[in-house]
Amino acid sequence: MANRRLIPMPEAGNGLLGRRHFLQASLGGGMTLLTATATAGIREKWMSAPGAGMSETGNPSPHETQLKRTGVSSRPGTTGSGVSRTPLEYLDGIITPSRLHFERHHSGIPDIEPGLHKLTIYGLVDRPLSFSIEALERYSKVSRIQFLECSGNSGALIAPEPVPLTAGGIHGLVSASEWGGVPLSVLLDEAGVKPEGKWIVADGADSAMMSRSVPLDKVLDDAIVALYQNGEPLRPSNGYPMRLFLPGWEGNMSVKWLRTIKVTRGPAMTKDETSKYSDLRNDGIAELFTFPMDVKSVITSPSPGLTLGPKGLYQVSGIAWSGAGKIRRVDVSADGGQSWAEAALDRHVLPMCLTRFRTAWNWDGGSAVLMSRATDDAGSVQPSRDTVMARRAGNSFYHYNGIQAWSVSEQGHLSNVYA
Amino acid sequence: MANRRLIPMPEAGNGLLGRRHFLQASLGGGMTLLTATATAGIREKWMSAPGAGMSETGNPSPHETQLKRTGVSSRPGTTGSGVSRTPLEYLDGIITPSRLHFERHHSGIPDIEPGLHKLTIYGLVDRPLSFSIEALERYSKVSRIQFLECSGNSGALIAPEPVPLTAGGIHGLVSASEWGGVPLSVLLDEAGVKPEGKWIVADGADSAMMSRSVPLDKVLDDAIVALYQNGEPLRPSNGYPMRLFLPGWEGNMSVKWLRTIKVTRGPAMTKDETSKYSDLRNDGIAELFTFPMDVKSVITSPSPGLTLGPKGLYQVSGIAWSGAGKIRRVDVSADGGQSWAEAALDRHVLPMCLTRFRTAWNWDGGSAVLMSRATDDAGSVQPSRDTVMARRAGNSFYHYNGIQAWSVSEQGHLSNVYA
Repeated sequence: MANRRLIPMPEAGNGLLGRRHFLQASLGGGMTLLTATATAGIREKWMSAPGAGMSETGNPSPHETQLKRTGVSSRPGTTGSGVSRTPLEYLDGIITPSRLHFERHHSGIPDIEPGLHKLTIYGLVDRPLSFSIEALERYSKVSRIQFLECSGNSGALIAPEPVPLTAGGIHGLVSASEWGGVPLSVLLDEAGVKPEGKWIVADGADSAMMSRSVPLDKVLDDAIVALYQNGEPLRPSNGYPMRLFLPGWEGNMSVKWLRTIKVTRGPAMTKDETSKYSDLRNDGIAELFTFPMDVKSVITSPSPGLTLGPKGLYQVSGIAWSGAGKIRRVDVSADGGQSWAEAALDRHVLPMCLTRFRTAWNWDGGSAVLMSRATDDAGSVQPSRDTVMARRAGNSFYHYNGIQAWSVSEQGHLSNVYA
Repeated sequence: MANRRLIPMPEAGNGLLGRRHFLQASLGGGMTLLTATATAGIREKWMSAPGAGMSETGNPSPHETQLKRTGVSSRPGTTGSGVSRTPLEYLDGIITPSRLHFERHHSGIPDIEPGLHKLTIYGLVDRPLSFSIEALERYSKVSRIQFLECSGNSGALIAPEPVPLTAGGIHGLVSASEWGGVPLSVLLDEAGVKPEGKWIVADGADSAMMSRSVPLDKVLDDAIVALYQNGEPLRPSNGYPMRLFLPGWEGNMSVKWLRTIKVTRGPAMTKDETSKYSDLRNDGIAELFTFPMDVKSVITSPSPGLTLGPKGLYQVSGIAWSGAGKIRRVDVSADGGQSWAEAALDRHVLPMCLTRFRTAWNWDGGSAVLMSRATDDAGSVQPSRDTVMARRAGNSFYHYNGIQAWSVSEQGHLSNVYA
């Protein structure tokens, strides 16, 4: 097969073509291994008899056994205080299937009978109120596609030596869903917040009674009492039958199994906001509250666990997000950050949501170091690992948003490196 | 509990408040049945011990047994030639969970071994090519959230008397997902379409070898070879490992289990495009090809199967969509079309996607007839049932997009009516 066209000139070092060529890059030039003369006449065995019929609920292909959450682990002595992670390296697009949404529970998933569950609003209000699910279903709702990220996500990257983990294993405490529910502002308006009420304290109905304080400004801006995820009622692992959802803010504040909201003068300094989630700086000062998640990105394909085949053109793709709003741009490097090319963003660039980026890369078969660097529409640029680490003390690992580097070997294997 | 505020003045008859009031409508005024003094001190039984731990894949709540596809049925003598429908009345937002995506198969779901499956492009091309999944994964992709609708959707409404079915039972052959894959234009460019090539014929790898012709203009505009749905690899019932996806066009053209694409001079007049999917008019002329799906909407809540409680405020919500582009507006009536109020649209109004609309309705406890009427950004307005039926002959039921009416009884029961 003749070379039909030249591969476009790279925009950055080590073969990175950048967004202008991401769709135009034809594999045809050197890809005879991957193409062959048409053999449309041969019928495969599954065409010789009718297949399986319709069903009440569908399942993934049994061939896709890798589609499961990874790193399922609990604190010693518990079964429900731990995490499971989204397998980012096997996903594409921006939606996370609900069954693969990451988990972070503090005392397991309560088995709530929906008919007995109520949300109670009390404290500095004119009229304490409680709401059954049936009552909340009567209110007008909103739905938005947004990310949720645990503040401990990517914390493995503070280790002195790079840990041999996958994209999901390191960064899989972030997922994105369509979240639907009642604006909390509407319910608070109905209860009547007293002038001295400036915060809320949200408690969950798990046995750890997860409890976080949230400034009223954020609540009135965009907080919802979520009843739906990806079109269907919430799943138990995501707070069934209702959860708080705070777009762009650290995940644990979006209290699952939401049970009470108390309007208060100030933060309650609960166990969950004083024993965890604070960032100790190297100047000895602890940043007690860090609510919005910083601008961040990671290349999911290729990434450790996936292997490159023959040299030539590959898609380099990943996700970027920011608690400050939309992603403005993502730059990608194939030479460890010496040069960068801007990636293309998929059509849906939504506020406080995962954004999918892509670029084409002409791999020459040599070693390489792939990196991505996100910029949000507030102008914040994802920092290097060195920059993040320079201001941290000891084992402070929350809110890590440094640039991720994946090394590529001549054999096409990928691994986590510090570069 | 005192009345805190007056319910806003309706914008249309029978208590319909319209979009200006959809979030402001407080239930507090007359809803003492639904609210109660806070009882935050009582702990439910599920708070007394740790809950279930993390897991590799999550499941819906066992309490949500209604979350299943409905109307699962096959033609007599077959198990795989039929449909299953999305239970629209239990969903919110715009994403359809993949396990509840509707099905329409012509000979069941083939059990394809992904390593043996290839897509072959041949016919009027310079270089016939075939692509393994591994090869397609190297190409730069796109992902978009878009609807898919069977051209037979809502056909039950041509019956002379209204059938007692649910929203999903009548309209559940429409779903929306994030679809991700390789633009077919890129693959055709690599194969080199000859000047006389103006159509493609796409064949599936099911035993019925579903086969449809598509004009090349559409293919080059926005067709993709989809590998991903809602973030994960396609499911078998939606074409695993790859399908054609043609945004906004009748569902059966988005050939599942895509196996071959032949570039041709004209349409092939296959069995699947001549024996079905044509619309016979009452003037005796048959419209052979109707590709884009027309503008349409349906109220999903409240709808048959759901029951209203006490009189007072309710959310009226549903979905609207058009194969021509975005939804511009949706109007809602509570008095059988005598008066209309504009509904609010959720944040994500995406081209060729389901759009969620909502309005508040102050039900006075009397009988009512709810209707929705969508307008797309091409200016097309969803027609009445009478208008649709007036131009049709006999049992012609494809491409039905008439306005749906739900009657509400004084007991709060809903049913399908012609109004």
